[in-house]
Amino acid sequence: MKTIRCLLTGLGNIGRTFLEILPAREARLREQYGVELKFVGVGDSSGTAISPDGLDIAAIVALKNERRGVANLPGVGRPGGNLLEMVETTDADLLLEATPTDIETGQPGLDLVRAAFRRGMNVVMASKGALVTAFDELAASSDWNGDRTKPALRFSGAVASALPSVNIGWRDLAGGEIKSIEAVLNGTTQVMLTMMREGKTYDEALAEAQRIGVAEPDPTLDVEGWDAANKLLILANAVLRQPTKLSEMSVTGITGVTVADIEAASANGGALILLCKAEPGPDGRFALSVAPTAVPAEHPFSRLGRKESGIVYESDIFGRMVALNLGQGPTGTAAAMLRDTLSLYGK
Amino acid sequence: MKTIRCLLTGLGNIGRTFLEILPAREARLREQYGVELKFVGVGDSSGTAISPDGLDIAAIVALKNERRGVANLPGVGRPGGNLLEMVETTDADLLLEATPTDIETGQPGLDLVRAAFRRGMNVVMASKGALVTAFDELAASSDWNGDRTKPALRFSGAVASALPSVNIGWRDLAGGEIKSIEAVLNGTTQVMLTMMREGKTYDEALAEAQRIGVAEPDPTLDVEGWDAANKLLILANAVLRQPTKLSEMSVTGITGVTVADIEAASANGGALILLCKAEPGPDGRFALSVAPTAVPAEHPFSRLGRKESGIVYESDIFGRMVALNLGQGPTGTAAAMLRDTLSLYGK
Repeated sequence: MKTIRCLLTGLGNIGRTFLEILPAREARLREQYGVELKFVGVGDSSGTAISPDGLDIAAIVALKNERRGVANLPGVGRPGGNLLEMVETTDADLLLEATPTDIETGQPGLDLVRAAFRRGMNVVMASKGALVTAFDELAASSDWNGDRTKPALRFSGAVASALPSVNIGWRDLAGGEIKSIEAVLNGTTQVMLTMMREGKTYDEALAEAQRIGVAEPDPTLDVEGWDAANKLLILANAVLRQPTKLSEMSVTGITGVTVADIEAASANGGALILLCKAEPGPDGRFALSVAPTAVPAEHPFSRLGRKESGIVYESDIFGRMVALNLGQGPTGTAAAMLRDTLSLYGK
Repeated sequence: MKTIRCLLTGLGNIGRTFLEILPAREARLREQYGVELKFVGVGDSSGTAISPDGLDIAAIVALKNERRGVANLPGVGRPGGNLLEMVETTDADLLLEATPTDIETGQPGLDLVRAAFRRGMNVVMASKGALVTAFDELAASSDWNGDRTKPALRFSGAVASALPSVNIGWRDLAGGEIKSIEAVLNGTTQVMLTMMREGKTYDEALAEAQRIGVAEPDPTLDVEGWDAANKLLILANAVLRQPTKLSEMSVTGITGVTVADIEAASANGGALILLCKAEPGPDGRFALSVAPTAVPAEHPFSRLGRKESGIVYESDIFGRMVALNLGQGPTGTAAAMLRDTLSLYGK
């Protein structure tokens, strides 16, 4: 039985959900995987809570469900406690990084992951920012490029939640040559386009998506295609092994999509989706794009529902590999953090 | 750069294809994965060929394409050489097992794998027999149950070729609880049912499938559902971790399927498929069945084509996970052997 000392940074929907799904699984983790997760430090915008003996997960979840920060945890809470300082000074085996990271700077996640690697901690990321802004650096300071003596880096939840988009690409297609990728990686636009298929206008779909909490008050990152582009960027760097910048990608969002576009695409069983593509480019590199695209009825994505994501890899020896996931909000991403953790420590 | 000394037993379509796809990939294996495969011993029905310095892969492939056995390899061939003796006496790191195994006894694969484990060799299996007849034993003498000090056992190609049916179940859904499995795992029946959808009778479809080499001269194992049942049995033991015998499963083949059944199922976009199912049973165990089943248009399997396989896992925290593969004959299984090998040795 291995006891894994964990640090968890970020206790928004994903971080909180990760803690919520653990208690019911403790017995399974012990028996089937031979591991026990001990949280020695957690942090959110209120500060940190640190205890080498392990924090009370139920107490943290209860606090967060009252919309209060971990700094308020009796005895162990540290109001204003700094996340970076916690990672730099708390002894742990694994950093679970789930802060809302700035997609321009990768912060605060980037510095947190750097600090963890400096201290030899393994890292499981649910946040995208640092992977988007500094993938090469993170790969070079971890085992991602193949040096198993370096700390491990896993991030299967950062690209499309529970959908094993990264795992299928780097592990199940190992040894083959990937010819192309098609993917639907953004939940908000998939929900909105589905609503439009059901008769809503763009504005109505956006308003409804915001009302049910699927779209942010400022929906720009999602509806302009940048969230999907960031995920495709991670696939390009991590799976296609093609160092790529956002500026090299062609990105079109769904803000210009009309009901007429939806109806035309839906004719004969097709559908309009926000499609991420990696296809052979002129210069021997992959050309990467994100754009509203009409797919025909026979395309695996033509019947993707509201909460579904999907990826299609074309490989020389593995043929066409399709993966689709119907997930529920933050649970899928939290589940991916658990799968990554078990891939590192599970027996 | 790691040099992996390999033994390959069985040089039918899969074993031969595995050797065929390697030469064009040597550079990629060295650069991207840091490995080089050296074949120190191979064997087929003619005998064996053994060389500690490594055999000439191109020469073996050329010989097999002339429908001649490896015993005829100049200098290194051993007419009548025994496969088991080769495994017991040749120093190697990895056994790649691809013999046509007897599904009743698991032989000759079972004894070959036992011998490899006794000698501390890792094993990658493309053959099903030993996994069907002795899964518990193979798991107990390998790392499958979590003891990483034991030799590794991988068999992602034994269940549905390139489709990562096992990998998704034991790795991408790790930490979650699998509620059910639905899968299409037999290629021959999928091809025949597709032909019947296109208007052929059962007898015409079987004759055509035999003509193009998709069905065996004796098609019993496929058309009676036993091949699919054996694959589901492996998933039950390996992924659901439920020790299961073939006798506990309900198995119905497609021999009784009529054109009328096909037409009824195809109405409204549905389809008749040979469906493998694991669903909650009365006794807290999974009930396992294989039977021709009509799925509605919205089911992920309703539009599976001739050469497609698929699996649907329902998980508590990972939601519904669908994987589909459109592959080409033995290449997919050979590719799976390569992916398993790289998962063990790739950097």
